[in-house]
Amino acid sequence: MKNEWHEHIMRVNYKDTDQMGVAHHGNYVSWFEIGRTEMMRDKGIAYSKMEDLGLLLPVLDLNVTYAKPARYDDCVGIYTKLTKSTAVRLEFGYEVRLLNEGACVTNTTVKKPDTNSDRELLATGGTVHMWLNKDWKPARVDKIAPDVFKLLRDVKGLQ
Amino acid sequence: MKNEWHEHIMRVNYKDTDQMGVAHHGNYVSWFEIGRTEMMRDKGIAYSKMEDLGLLLPVLDLNVTYAKPARYDDCVGIYTKLTKSTAVRLEFGYEVRLLNEGACVTNTTVKKPDTNSDRELLATGGTVHMWLNKDWKPARVDKIAPDVFKLLRDVKGLQ
Amino acid sequence: MKNEWHEHIMRVNYKDTDQMGVAHHGNYVSWFEIGRTEMMRDKGIAYSKMEDLGLLLPVLDLNVTYAKPARYDDCVGIYTKLTKSTAVRLEFGYEVRLLNEGACVTNTTVKKPDTNSDRELLATGGTVHMWLNKDWKPARVDKIAPDVFKLLRDVKGLQ
Amino acid sequence: MKNEWHEHIMRVNYKDTDQMGVAHHGNYVSWFEIGRTEMMRDKGIAYSKMEDLGLLLPVLDLNVTYAKPARYDDCVGIYTKLTKSTAVRLEFGYEVRLLNEGACVTNTTVKKPDTNSDRELLATGGTVHMWLNKDWKPARVDKIAPDVFKLLRDVKGLQ
Repeated sequence: MKNEWHEHIMRVNYKDTDQMGVAHHGNYVSWFEIGRTEMMRDKGIAYSKMEDLGLLLPVLDLNVTYAKPARYDDCVGIYTKLTKSTAVRLEFGYEVRLLNEGACVTNTTVKKPDTNSDRELLATGGTVHMWLNKDWKPARVDKIAPDVFKLLRDVKGLQ
Repeated sequence: MKNEWHEHIMRVNYKDTDQMGVAHHGNYVSWFEIGRTEMMRDKGIAYSKMEDLGLLLPVLDLNVTYAKPARYDDCVGIYTKLTKSTAVRLEFGYEVRLLNEGACVTNTTVKKPDTNSDRELLATGGTVHMWLNKDWKPARVDKIAPDVFKLLRDVKGLQ
Repeated sequence: MKNEWHEHIMRVNYKDTDQMGVAHHGNYVSWFEIGRTEMMRDKGIAYSKMEDLGLLLPVLDLNVTYAKPARYDDCVGIYTKLTKSTAVRLEFGYEVRLLNEGACVTNTTVKKPDTNSDRELLATGGTVHMWLNKDWKPARVDKIAPDVFKLLRDVKGLQ
Repeated sequence: MKNEWHEHIMRVNYKDTDQMGVAHHGNYVSWFEIGRTEMMRDKGIAYSKMEDLGLLLPVLDLNVTYAKPARYDDCVGIYTKLTKSTAVRLEFGYEVRLLNEGACVTNTTVKKPDTNSDRELLATGGTVHMWLNKDWKPARVDKIAPDVFKLLRDVKGLQ
């Protein structure tokens, strides 16, 4: 179960703060995007290549629940999980957790379980996506990019 | 019913586009923020004044459902509705609609019903907020700013 | 001279603040972009239409000098002036000034001189742009869009 | 000479693209900010700690010259150099270069000379900063944080 989460470690940038002294809530949307990009790359799927094939993957639905604020220069982990993959649709789940400073200094990219109690939960969320062609019409990824479809179906932990 | 929606008219900026040629989905989070700021101002509540009183109103929960993409330079309306207001919590609903060019050129700010069939729905969403003090502890707005609490309770269409 | 400045009035959004409690310096780049878009629209040139003609207008050079910080919910004026226009190049100058609250409440869009001493200068800047085609090769706007070229040459106050 | 540049390697995010299909020019301002934060951290100065000491370091002046566009998912290096450090002022120079894919995959953070001809120059720039206290009044870093002042004066390659 634990291993299905992909970990991406990053710093909270100054630009991402607001005058409450925390990372503005809108940034989590970008962090989720980075998380799923890196998760897909890790599975052998470069999203930039998908667009070269004429496939777009816009967001249909987005939700975020905020538990604790992230702050400037915090070292955070973006945890991403593919939760559903069909020929026309993808769904992802996300967690943002506060890591200790060491996780950023060593710049480790090794995947780890997210159950470590040291990793305080900052936010959770999910996105639903639809495969479209360049004309923004529904596209079947199993027809257009069968290898990508297979890679996505083979992801562990899918519902 | 219709009159409970507050309308804020704006342009989609170039910076907000992405390489799909549409407004990046993350921008809607900012648009909702602008919508609720302007709705509250319209009710006599300047959010900037709330922070002067030591009150913060962070987002606990956010959801967006995307129907159609907004594009560069589109004239869009952000429709905001206060859906719940208690001593510790606020909830807002949002709609983003595509307006015709004239709505931006005349720069009208008159509130209108959103039922006009010319106004194509681009996205809907909601946010849940909690009143906090400067130490990020729950705060009762009815104690700290009773006049604001009253103004918020008097908003028409509250559930 | 004064009349050559185009005025665009806007609010500083919450998202644009950082933890210093001011508008993050990066936002001025977007404000300049909004300023020149609106200035060109005012001259009868919709930048969105330029891209339909296959013309791009990327930034070659950017500079900003910051005098005083803008703050959340401030009503600011973006003043834009076309300073140079050739067949291959455009240059703009900018000023950002703090306006009084009334300028935003009445939502006036009338052009005014920027010499009013009430309008505190927050920042100045400039951008240099080059006309390119869709392949990012230099393009001559006088050949591809002669009417646009003429409109740009007729702007008062050009050097 | 070469060693005075600090290297920070990162990906261009999807959110950073615009409808020209390239990274929007405004992002370079954020990248410079990340570059100088990481350069200072590398010298033993956490900018987040400076604010705890009551010191702010706002930008007085910014310039960017764009040579070639960065594109989505490009692996880029942000090269930062401290060019001036006095008791009241800091100046930085920047280069953004396109790296090959391997630089991001191995996630190396080793400093390297920037003279490698494989590293195409995308942009150059500079920022000027002033040390201020929390009231936005000029502050002398040599009085308030002498150790930081010393660390900054010891940076190689200062003019």
